[in-house]
Amino acid sequence: MSSEITLEKVAGNGLINRRHLLGFGVGSLGVAISKQALGQESGLRFEIPDWSKRPGSGPSGYGQRSSHTEYIERLAGNPNPLYPGGGSSRSPLHQLQGTITPNSLHFERHHAGIPDIDPAGHRLVINGLVNQPLAFSYEDLLAYPMVSKIYFLECSGNSGTLLGANPVDGTAQSIHGLVSCAEWTGIRLSVLLEEAGVQPQAGWVSAVGADGASMGRSLPLDKALDDVLIALYQNGEPIRPEQGYPMRLFVPGWEGNISVKWLTQLKLTTGPSQFRDETSKYTDTRPDRSSMQFTFPMGCKSLITSPSGQMALSRRGLYQVTGIAWSGAGAIRRVEVSADGGNSWADALLQSDATEKALTRFRIPWQWQGQDAILISRATDERGNVQPSRQSILTERGNFSTYHYHGYQSWGITGEGTVSNVYV
Amino acid sequence: MSSEITLEKVAGNGLINRRHLLGFGVGSLGVAISKQALGQESGLRFEIPDWSKRPGSGPSGYGQRSSHTEYIERLAGNPNPLYPGGGSSRSPLHQLQGTITPNSLHFERHHAGIPDIDPAGHRLVINGLVNQPLAFSYEDLLAYPMVSKIYFLECSGNSGTLLGANPVDGTAQSIHGLVSCAEWTGIRLSVLLEEAGVQPQAGWVSAVGADGASMGRSLPLDKALDDVLIALYQNGEPIRPEQGYPMRLFVPGWEGNISVKWLTQLKLTTGPSQFRDETSKYTDTRPDRSSMQFTFPMGCKSLITSPSGQMALSRRGLYQVTGIAWSGAGAIRRVEVSADGGNSWADALLQSDATEKALTRFRIPWQWQGQDAILISRATDERGNVQPSRQSILTERGNFSTYHYHGYQSWGITGEGTVSNVYV
Repeated sequence: MSSEITLEKVAGNGLINRRHLLGFGVGSLGVAISKQALGQESGLRFEIPDWSKRPGSGPSGYGQRSSHTEYIERLAGNPNPLYPGGGSSRSPLHQLQGTITPNSLHFERHHAGIPDIDPAGHRLVINGLVNQPLAFSYEDLLAYPMVSKIYFLECSGNSGTLLGANPVDGTAQSIHGLVSCAEWTGIRLSVLLEEAGVQPQAGWVSAVGADGASMGRSLPLDKALDDVLIALYQNGEPIRPEQGYPMRLFVPGWEGNISVKWLTQLKLTTGPSQFRDETSKYTDTRPDRSSMQFTFPMGCKSLITSPSGQMALSRRGLYQVTGIAWSGAGAIRRVEVSADGGNSWADALLQSDATEKALTRFRIPWQWQGQDAILISRATDERGNVQPSRQSILTERGNFSTYHYHGYQSWGITGEGTVSNVYV
Repeated sequence: MSSEITLEKVAGNGLINRRHLLGFGVGSLGVAISKQALGQESGLRFEIPDWSKRPGSGPSGYGQRSSHTEYIERLAGNPNPLYPGGGSSRSPLHQLQGTITPNSLHFERHHAGIPDIDPAGHRLVINGLVNQPLAFSYEDLLAYPMVSKIYFLECSGNSGTLLGANPVDGTAQSIHGLVSCAEWTGIRLSVLLEEAGVQPQAGWVSAVGADGASMGRSLPLDKALDDVLIALYQNGEPIRPEQGYPMRLFVPGWEGNISVKWLTQLKLTTGPSQFRDETSKYTDTRPDRSSMQFTFPMGCKSLITSPSGQMALSRRGLYQVTGIAWSGAGAIRRVEVSADGGNSWADALLQSDATEKALTRFRIPWQWQGQDAILISRATDERGNVQPSRQSILTERGNFSTYHYHGYQSWGITGEGTVSNVYV
């Protein structure tokens, strides 16, 4: 059966109706994936592999992954040797599937490295404009009611390189790897604030970490009383040291830096505290050189993770274009994909449940016959926010600062099948 | 404020309206949790801990957990030394929170140990009553469309000890730890079967693993064409060796053993193949000594994970009773909790999203003033299935075999605060 005849094209340059995913295998579409009929003259022999001939290893207390998957790693580094402990690691988005990021591969961003905290010596203090200042031990907090939600977390500096004048030769990981997603379990901050008794003149909460940087950020009280958590568990187990063990603030949908790790103090104040990381950093400088401060929510965003930068298409035929979408404003409702640089778009299928402020995976089949192509994805959230193009962000905000880039990621594909970051 | 006056009791022996979780902190209810007002004569001093005085360690490629949490382990063992590779490990349910089980703590069950498979040498064959026998490499399968869903997995032998004549002195982990939950990403089996072309006389699919036991199970074709996956990823990363790397069958809602790991063959047949593990094992023997075969779906079930067996209540006051519920038939709609051995029941709060065939976490506050108590939970799913009592299972099925126990777990609490497995 010829794919040219039977497949419903839904947008330019090879995009196929997503419904074909539900009923057709790749092979039945005549794609040249290696596959052999058994018992024919294919020369294929099935020898019993060694691992089927004897008992394998036994169960263990805390399992490890296969040695054959150890190439999957975060991209870790400290870009500035004069800044001890300043650094990050990026999730290998191009090698992951689904929406949950395993704890060992969740992105990191540290301002003074990872403190090794003994929870027995750690305290969370709530003070300032409260009726009763309070101190909580880790054990105290474990007795409180908790909620469990799957949320993305994204550094506001993620993808910022795309505001540069020239497209970097990067991967989905190196350009966009400062976003991850996990199930976070913790105590609603509102419960603890109610217990301390918030005084009427309080308008902000200053959160400070126990790391060597005393990383601090100011959080508006209305958000603090909404959906903010004191997170104690990540994907079921106690949060990892690099995520703030024994506890972190978790501020759903907002820039990652405000989800202060190794949380040790929450001080109620009338206004923001003007910490270093909300004055010298994490502000958005506009074309007129003024800066916008406290631009917390993360935009509606998506990117294609496969095919993506530095991959190579090794054969002609049908590909599953797949990627992730998310929004700080709510759930993802729609993802469109273009294969012709934005001239035409087709709806992708949402492959996972689309829940509020969580990664959502999409996919759409695409026929590649060796033509040049530019693949782009565009997300829409439940509030109607649509991911903007790179050019529209440049026009609106300029590029004096590179926080909060949530525009298009365009992947250029050559006739030879190489994939690279391009601008359209 | 006296908790005796202000708390709305909703069932006997101290159960409190779950709505109190939303607006009241534990402390405001006058519970004796250690907590000190700052700046008063508490003697509390806040010295800067060492970890706040210097930069910590840097980011890494594949993160590890805190050394302070290494006590959290699966309970691993092989109960029969004459059966090499036969063994299991149980998830530490009493130490986890939320609903996702991290991959390192997902339960295991092996019949010939864990084979160390190089995916380059692994094949998945589909043959038997098909129009075109097919063989797939790992790389072939990665090109297929995938879906991502969060599902529980439970061994049908889980909790079976509760059908014994006397209650064992066990924990939530040792009694119930053969259940876990993860996001599984894979290819719908229906896609591959359609590609091979299922012949009209086919009624079953025989699935065989590449382990030393050649673990095999027979799956009815209608289920195979419904929601069954060839799972390749678990919580975002390639599935672990102990879960079937590089691929496993995943049969949502059915007993774990049929989700054949290290999957290497799917043979279409007219009837079931009568493998060892569906004749000598994984059958349910009734009081009249006849056996029910192919009793696949897992029942509607729940248990309280805290407080639970071998824990101790260290103080009087308010506790958050919490646990997990699940059903092979769909989503959890309701969980009730009793503190008086089943005489009265109160609705718990569902703490996480309740999705189809996934763990759902519940909680309810409970006032313990030193009285004897028996805590039980009871789940109801979206199809109206209600978790039965232990006695009703015994009456209906007897205890010649101990698969598919989904009755009550009762935790007895003494005046001294010790918690143990009891029968009611």
